[in-house]
Amino acid sequence: MTARDGEARAGVLHTPHGDVPTPTFMPVGTKGSVKGLTPGDLRSASAGVVLGNTYHLYLRPGADLIREAGGLHGFSGWDGPMLTDSGGYQVFSLAHKRRLSERGVEFASVYDGSSHLFTPELTTRVQEDLGADVAMVLDECPPANASREYHTESLRRTARWAERCREAHGREDQALFGIVQGGLYPDLREESLERTVELGFPGYAVGGLSVGESREEMLEMLALVAPGLPAGKPRYFMGIGDPVGILQVIALGVDMFDCVLPTRLARHGMALTRDGRINLKNARYRRDLGVLEAECPCEACTGYSRAYLSHLIRENEMLGHRLVTLHNVHFVGELCRRARVAIGEGRYGEFMQRWISRYTNPEGGAQATGVAL
Amino acid sequence: MTARDGEARAGVLHTPHGDVPTPTFMPVGTKGSVKGLTPGDLRSASAGVVLGNTYHLYLRPGADLIREAGGLHGFSGWDGPMLTDSGGYQVFSLAHKRRLSERGVEFASVYDGSSHLFTPELTTRVQEDLGADVAMVLDECPPANASREYHTESLRRTARWAERCREAHGREDQALFGIVQGGLYPDLREESLERTVELGFPGYAVGGLSVGESREEMLEMLALVAPGLPAGKPRYFMGIGDPVGILQVIALGVDMFDCVLPTRLARHGMALTRDGRINLKNARYRRDLGVLEAECPCEACTGYSRAYLSHLIRENEMLGHRLVTLHNVHFVGELCRRARVAIGEGRYGEFMQRWISRYTNPEGGAQATGVAL
Repeated sequence: MTARDGEARAGVLHTPHGDVPTPTFMPVGTKGSVKGLTPGDLRSASAGVVLGNTYHLYLRPGADLIREAGGLHGFSGWDGPMLTDSGGYQVFSLAHKRRLSERGVEFASVYDGSSHLFTPELTTRVQEDLGADVAMVLDECPPANASREYHTESLRRTARWAERCREAHGREDQALFGIVQGGLYPDLREESLERTVELGFPGYAVGGLSVGESREEMLEMLALVAPGLPAGKPRYFMGIGDPVGILQVIALGVDMFDCVLPTRLARHGMALTRDGRINLKNARYRRDLGVLEAECPCEACTGYSRAYLSHLIRENEMLGHRLVTLHNVHFVGELCRRARVAIGEGRYGEFMQRWISRYTNPEGGAQATGVAL
Repeated sequence: MTARDGEARAGVLHTPHGDVPTPTFMPVGTKGSVKGLTPGDLRSASAGVVLGNTYHLYLRPGADLIREAGGLHGFSGWDGPMLTDSGGYQVFSLAHKRRLSERGVEFASVYDGSSHLFTPELTTRVQEDLGADVAMVLDECPPANASREYHTESLRRTARWAERCREAHGREDQALFGIVQGGLYPDLREESLERTVELGFPGYAVGGLSVGESREEMLEMLALVAPGLPAGKPRYFMGIGDPVGILQVIALGVDMFDCVLPTRLARHGMALTRDGRINLKNARYRRDLGVLEAECPCEACTGYSRAYLSHLIRENEMLGHRLVTLHNVHFVGELCRRARVAIGEGRYGEFMQRWISRYTNPEGGAQATGVAL
């Protein structure tokens, strides 16, 4: 940690593939590429850590091929820091058929319905094959509406799985992070926190549920858990990528977060700007010869007009999706950079308040009063 | 013209946006972007002239907006040489309803069925708005099976339209090329050639039909027409982009050609290599850790394996389409460069023969005998 402002933290994540200043947003390369972007694009967008999805890569093209290609780094050409999830979230949110036992979770592939068994040992080995700098333990993500009894049993099983993952994990150039679960029950979150920290990991995630929780509920759980995590270890909040949510979890002491949102929005023609999320298909952008975001140095904002981007998006042209994806990744990265600066200068609360005010209310917010953020 | 070898020619096309060595392949930016590629990508692929489709751009987003944005150059960010077609080919090949008269051709938009009238004056004005370095006269592209009488009337109307285009054309920084038509009738091609050359244009295209002609038939017509075109003017053969076809039209004295083939193939996972066209979805590439094309310096061939590209294409990942598109454009550009060198060295016939032999028969061709081309 290099600075602290309230609960918000600024620091540096050290990895075998380089250091990353935190807080940092991790763009998601679900299937081994961040939608349309090359490693060069990601570097130009100041991406720090790139995330890969073990569930998808295990099924297609397979971890053995990726290992043979030099891991996900060699396979995809991205030579910066990388993190893989365990695949647990996808098993619990995507699979229509699954069977859970102490041993692991059996599921039907979303691609072809074939049957697979994820055990803590397997997902650890697969992640060693993928070779990211950070791997995650296998956790269960139950639905929010599961019973208290279910959540209790689940978090204890997740803790036992975490221990098995740690036992199975052997790569010294890869950090294995634990995950705190416990649903929306404060005391169960406390129990999961205690069990996970007791096991001892070089970093900790706060995990979500497979379905059904609200943003407010998750932030409450995060606020409860974060202060109990070891201060010297990185903290990863799973599955947040909208600008307001990012600022909120940073305020609660999170260092890393990921979400497909910025890249998925782009493919639907939605661009992130300081004055809110805009839909480039909207008629008002059809003849708008201004740039997408005035001070943004990304490729989309320096070479093209909103009218051109709007045209490409309307016509479903690949270049439109590519450029807006690049912009959104750059935008979220820049938001994190500004947050770091604000934390370092001890004005994070004010920064966050002004930023959210302008983002959610562009007409009456900071823009109208001429305040530069 | 800087060199000649048989009928094949090497030269330089001078435009307000730069000089282009010929023969040159012109990648097609149908709707104002070459599928997934930025201007920077196109430059890295040594693209010379980029083509825009007047039919599509007139309908979406409209020539007035593009003019306001500084023409297609300003709108798309491509600052190199550019050519627009007249829209005639699309009207005759795409439109399900159309009504032809001396005045022009009325058609229903492929986008929304709305009715539009293309006259020689309108397509010339629209192309002036688009502002490419080269514009084309409006021509009729009848189907191959139209009667001799129809083709006769058609080529004469096309000649009258060409004259009206020339009358209407005012931009001094834009060259307007004539188009020789005449179907598959040698004497009608001769007549069209004579009428078009008599009008006098700074460049000439040999036009195809809307449907029904074979490659051999078109090459026969080209062989007949090309020697009658003024030697000092650029010659453009419309609608060819496969490597063998490119080499064949160069042999017949063509300087410029365009086709969506290299970019369209890429989106279907087909990559051009010196050993033929390969389908990256083929099982043999799934674990192939070699590069796509050994000596190719393009981004796709220097950063990634065939296995990675195959994975991206199978999973329909945008990055796969983007990288293979870039490779195919680069590949065809490099083929033209090699053709130019061979023409300059007076060995075009041999070059073409060896190249086609390896491309169409990779196992028994030049590769097997170790001949470097």
